[in-house]
Amino acid sequence: MPILPVTLDRRAADPLHRQLSLAIRTLLADGVVARGERLPSSRALAADLGVARSVTEQAYDQLVAEGWLETRRGAGTYVAAQGHAIAPIPSRPPETDKRPVLRLDTGMPWIDPRHAAGWRRAWREVSTAAPPRGYDDPRGLPELRRLLAERIGRIRAVRCDPEEVVVTGGTTDGLRHLLAELRPGPVAAEDPGYRAAVATVQAAGRAVVDLPAGRPVGPHALVGAAAAYVTPAHQHPLGVVMSAADRLALLAAATTAEAQIVEDDYDSEFRYDVAPVPALASLDRTRVTYLGTASKSVAPSLRLGWMVPPPELGEAIRRRRAATHDSVPWPVQRAFVTLLRDGYVDKVVRSARRVYAERAPRVVEAMSPYATAAGPSAGMYSTWLMDAERARTARAEARRAGFDVPLLADYTRTSPLTGLVVAFGGVTDAQLDRVLAALRRGLARS
Amino acid sequence: MPILPVTLDRRAADPLHRQLSLAIRTLLADGVVARGERLPSSRALAADLGVARSVTEQAYDQLVAEGWLETRRGAGTYVAAQGHAIAPIPSRPPETDKRPVLRLDTGMPWIDPRHAAGWRRAWREVSTAAPPRGYDDPRGLPELRRLLAERIGRIRAVRCDPEEVVVTGGTTDGLRHLLAELRPGPVAAEDPGYRAAVATVQAAGRAVVDLPAGRPVGPHALVGAAAAYVTPAHQHPLGVVMSAADRLALLAAATTAEAQIVEDDYDSEFRYDVAPVPALASLDRTRVTYLGTASKSVAPSLRLGWMVPPPELGEAIRRRRAATHDSVPWPVQRAFVTLLRDGYVDKVVRSARRVYAERAPRVVEAMSPYATAAGPSAGMYSTWLMDAERARTARAEARRAGFDVPLLADYTRTSPLTGLVVAFGGVTDAQLDRVLAALRRGLARS
Repeated sequence: MPILPVTLDRRAADPLHRQLSLAIRTLLADGVVARGERLPSSRALAADLGVARSVTEQAYDQLVAEGWLETRRGAGTYVAAQGHAIAPIPSRPPETDKRPVLRLDTGMPWIDPRHAAGWRRAWREVSTAAPPRGYDDPRGLPELRRLLAERIGRIRAVRCDPEEVVVTGGTTDGLRHLLAELRPGPVAAEDPGYRAAVATVQAAGRAVVDLPAGRPVGPHALVGAAAAYVTPAHQHPLGVVMSAADRLALLAAATTAEAQIVEDDYDSEFRYDVAPVPALASLDRTRVTYLGTASKSVAPSLRLGWMVPPPELGEAIRRRRAATHDSVPWPVQRAFVTLLRDGYVDKVVRSARRVYAERAPRVVEAMSPYATAAGPSAGMYSTWLMDAERARTARAEARRAGFDVPLLADYTRTSPLTGLVVAFGGVTDAQLDRVLAALRRGLARS
Repeated sequence: MPILPVTLDRRAADPLHRQLSLAIRTLLADGVVARGERLPSSRALAADLGVARSVTEQAYDQLVAEGWLETRRGAGTYVAAQGHAIAPIPSRPPETDKRPVLRLDTGMPWIDPRHAAGWRRAWREVSTAAPPRGYDDPRGLPELRRLLAERIGRIRAVRCDPEEVVVTGGTTDGLRHLLAELRPGPVAAEDPGYRAAVATVQAAGRAVVDLPAGRPVGPHALVGAAAAYVTPAHQHPLGVVMSAADRLALLAAATTAEAQIVEDDYDSEFRYDVAPVPALASLDRTRVTYLGTASKSVAPSLRLGWMVPPPELGEAIRRRRAATHDSVPWPVQRAFVTLLRDGYVDKVVRSARRVYAERAPRVVEAMSPYATAAGPSAGMYSTWLMDAERARTARAEARRAGFDVPLLADYTRTSPLTGLVVAFGGVTDAQLDRVLAALRRGLARS
């Protein structure tokens, strides 16, 4: 047995003295060598390990500098502190994720591969640019905010100054920033509704109050709430458009309650029945925060979105984000400038809209003999109302065919609505045929 | 005066019927046309505006579909709901940011431009890859977690499984994720200390308890706290290394209080005096969350970091991030895989370490005749203790030369320490000469 139970590896990249100091540290931390114990001299240890004395001296010097060891004049090297016994953490087995089933996710868009040159150009531009040296303006790159303000004004009738636009990491990130600045209190959210938004409200430590989706909000429905989260352009997941009267009722209720409104405008670009209704925020910029996202037009994994909060809230958000270094990665912002500027976003949106416009009637054809559409056809999914048992039977049949079709119940909290949500963005045409055939089989049988 | 005060632009990209529906909507929202009022017929309006009747019909159809207008059989088109008068929001003047002064920021690294080919290669790889279609594993790309686990184990002696590594948007983002899973209670933080971490704790709604930096933690100092945030490898901003005895005392105090420890290992790669002390997390993985960042090695604007939390907290973080779509953009993760794999990170770290090792003694030479170093020279800044008046005089002199040198008081809460924090990463050699000359002038005079 060596004088210290240590093995060194001469072929390792780590120099020997660092290997040795690491090994001794482990012995001390594990309590193998106890407090106050005297260590072998650097000369004796070097001889024992067959290394140069400089190796053991450097290792001891390092451990003395760190406070693990102490030298006593003329008396050698001692352990300075009590060893701290640690139970090693067993490494977990990797999670098995077989994923034999393709989930039809309402958030998974279809991206036309014919526009890939635009994507390549955007990242090549990032590759030849130098990243900023410090931390950015947390609101985002000025050029990006300028392009976004122009686009939101043109497409969504929300007139805003580039200074008011805030670049976010997506819809839920924008919601998180807003929640941090609102007065305490619960947040009203549509039921059925967007689960990630509800989870974001709860993660912020706030309670969620249910607003029946697709129905007008009563004049006092928001009293006590800090905000209402809504999807006016295309209620998620029922698909209905909030009517003008309901919009005004919602604004009036928010005014009465002195609550804010959060408008999640996640897929208004993908209407193919009628032109999208202008954003709710176009009616009242002081009361409504507008949230947009690149998840549906470019990719959810880009984690890029934008928000237009009322000016005072925007300033509070900017201050908090600056203080906590909470900003969107510069390369992602820089690439999105190119994607917007070169028309890539417009091109993929147009391509996807054409594909969705072609797929939506196929879903209607398959489902409408058996179920009622919850809203008009728009975007990349449609929701079908039917009794719970029938929905489960159809879902089971789809699962046998290799597809995970979510139940409407997955999106409800207290709503009694039941049915299926059929997303058709993240599949190929052939896959869509297969899942629709399976659903039809299940529906016809039940 | 036309029958409706509307102007259309034939050269605009927007089709005429959408311009018209937008214009009418604005009139309704502004209350120019009131509830119940009858609108001109589509034929009369078309004649008045000099457009085809299909334009006015489409615009009316759209507004009826939205609920703004209603048609009464045989009686024409009426405004359905009360117009909602809105005060337009005045656009704020752009903030003036003249920035005549260069701020010496402790977080601004020096990046050797000679390694730019590695940066270009990483983003070119992103450009030719296709982004994932859905939402990623919020823990990050498996390949990136594998590379990080290997690196953290090799460089920082934190042995962990890739499954335990969590990719974050930087140090403060990692801290935010952890805070969301800790029991209620304040967080102890070093004073003086890292301001962005303190702001992150406060933004999470928690109080901050001061821990005197560079001094041992008493056995009951953490009782009542949910966690302690510390920078053991290089106390920010004093620069001292936490001794082995102090590390064990901190672990013991955390164990007594059943509190977690957050170890911010922001710049341990940049020691040039002694090899970095192994991470505190190497002593106790169940009690210590390790936080690392690419801000100092690649760029703060990359917004990329990593954390190794205790396994149960890691699982809670994963679940919450999945539910709220809170993940790091795929392109940034993908690029960092290349930057690590190709050795770019190692190369820029080695280059920067050489530059810092050369610059640090120049700072010592300038400052040491007048002030006391708060810690050993390491990383990209050093902190100098002196009385507050002298620090202010030197700072004023630097400012006249065009540099913003932060006071130590900017980093303190209740600590009585005063002095200057001299960061030398984000400047050129010539700029460093100028700021040091200015500081010397100010120090010699006071």
